[in-house]
Amino acid sequence: MKSPDSEAKVRPGEFELIAKLFAPLSRGVSGAFALTDDVALLEPKPGHELVLKTDSLIESVHFLRSDPAGTVAQKALRRALSDLAAKGAEPSVYLLALALPSWPDMNWLEAFAAGLAEDQERFECALAGGETNATPGPVTVTITVVGYVPQGALIRRNGATPGDSVFVSGTIGDAGAGLGLLTNGDTPARAAARDFLISRYRLPDPRLELGRELRGLASASLDVSDGLLADLGHVAEASQVRIEIDAARVPMSDALRELRGEGTSGRARAATAGDDYEIAFTAPRSRADAILEAARRTGTQVTEIGRVVSGGGVALLDGSCNPIQVPRQGYTHF
Amino acid sequence: MKSPDSEAKVRPGEFELIAKLFAPLSRGVSGAFALTDDVALLEPKPGHELVLKTDSLIESVHFLRSDPAGTVAQKALRRALSDLAAKGAEPSVYLLALALPSWPDMNWLEAFAAGLAEDQERFECALAGGETNATPGPVTVTITVVGYVPQGALIRRNGATPGDSVFVSGTIGDAGAGLGLLTNGDTPARAAARDFLISRYRLPDPRLELGRELRGLASASLDVSDGLLADLGHVAEASQVRIEIDAARVPMSDALRELRGEGTSGRARAATAGDDYEIAFTAPRSRADAILEAARRTGTQVTEIGRVVSGGGVALLDGSCNPIQVPRQGYTHF
Repeated sequence: MKSPDSEAKVRPGEFELIAKLFAPLSRGVSGAFALTDDVALLEPKPGHELVLKTDSLIESVHFLRSDPAGTVAQKALRRALSDLAAKGAEPSVYLLALALPSWPDMNWLEAFAAGLAEDQERFECALAGGETNATPGPVTVTITVVGYVPQGALIRRNGATPGDSVFVSGTIGDAGAGLGLLTNGDTPARAAARDFLISRYRLPDPRLELGRELRGLASASLDVSDGLLADLGHVAEASQVRIEIDAARVPMSDALRELRGEGTSGRARAATAGDDYEIAFTAPRSRADAILEAARRTGTQVTEIGRVVSGGGVALLDGSCNPIQVPRQGYTHF
Repeated sequence: MKSPDSEAKVRPGEFELIAKLFAPLSRGVSGAFALTDDVALLEPKPGHELVLKTDSLIESVHFLRSDPAGTVAQKALRRALSDLAAKGAEPSVYLLALALPSWPDMNWLEAFAAGLAEDQERFECALAGGETNATPGPVTVTITVVGYVPQGALIRRNGATPGDSVFVSGTIGDAGAGLGLLTNGDTPARAAARDFLISRYRLPDPRLELGRELRGLASASLDVSDGLLADLGHVAEASQVRIEIDAARVPMSDALRELRGEGTSGRARAATAGDDYEIAFTAPRSRADAILEAARRTGTQVTEIGRVVSGGGVALLDGSCNPIQVPRQGYTHF
């Protein structure tokens, strides 16, 4: 017999749901009107430009129904925050469009809202507006984040120059491996490694503090969401340069090394897996010390992994500087 | 045998799709970076506040798969624009999150983008960013509109005062009847009436020009999307007043009268149907002339339909001032 606590709680109607779960998330945002009006009002910040990003998280595409509701909400928010981080922007408010089939009950929705509450505090942003709809399809969480960047300080994709070094934050390939563990039943040696990789899949860590420090240091930057090689390919294309990555320098976590080993194929797999949400960026070599100092200050691991040269495209090089063939450079949405 | 023109065109990959169909929609928006960067950058407008609205249009919930792709796109955009209109705001840019199952082919997507292109010109706004995703579910179009309102000029829901009159733009109940014609097979007398009602379902007309004129005139305003009574109920609640609507004064189109007659039940049905996207607003009686002048100037029909009194809730009154019982005041999302 189920205990009363574990029973599915019936979901209230739309307006009660908004008042109970979502209005509290807008506390402190005067222009959210406690979610009782039709729009959100935002006062611009003097000397700053607005930075906007919209991003959808779709059940069975970007998350699994078995994922905890709190991390589903947090992943949706953090993916959008990660884009702001890579551009040197700071989040302010966000809008939420939530399409709900019938299966998420009130327990699920409470955990979803609690996940957002936790992250709002952590990343200093708040809900300004949104809407909920019924859908016959998968849970679809669309977050639109509004942030600020000092006038002229946005870090674009198109500023990489031959001679620049290439850097990446954190470790690469963990989330892709975590997804594999959840869906393919791969079993690494230790439960701790498994837990770590799955948590990296479920909960990316937007590098907002590092991103702010990179203003004026990075020549080009983006967040790694589709795969390190695929995303650096976008920088190469926008900047009209070639980017070479040394496979041996691609940062891998202990857990991932335990699962995949130190060999070239494991590194190539890491460099083409999705969902990392780390910042990949380029900068003149002369700024390497300042960058490592910024990394230290913000408590973020940053690794130099390659270089910008003239030409086009992106290559992953082995120890003899020969390109490693990869079946695909990253995830494509379709 | 099918002619080559009628054959399904294969959909290209994500990046080609964005470059071919969506990047042209961002022309003229420098901060859209031709959709080749991760975020959109927006310069605030001096003396103005930003107005934000996010809204999802979901296949089989808000539109039918048989609806033309161009009007699907336009309905998605216009629903969000309608909210801005009711608040006295002017649109600037929008973001698009498009979740696509496999069925929409390139013809569908081209028509979808062409619909947006047409509306961007008509309503003076442009695409600033977005993303596309595969989904195992219905087509889901989430639009986030960013607009401006002069500092302090936003028209809220909470300003209605006893003694105010209640007004509504356009005609009410057409879209609900149009949906009924498409799904229930109701057949009104004339094809022209049928076409008109279906077009009102597929293509709302956001009253942006009227909305701008209502700044400083309306005491409270919102767009009618869930049903005239339901939405005026929100104004009553936010303003802590009672709103009385005279059923006989609810504006009905010739086509709807042809379908439903002049009786009370037809009017009650119109006042509780969804998808009107007209502006319902309140204003002191002394401003009635100025309001009708603004209506004339913007070529918009505006009808005085009732009054604000003290108390709570909303009522639809018959010719003897008795409340008409309605099964529900409007559409609820779940």
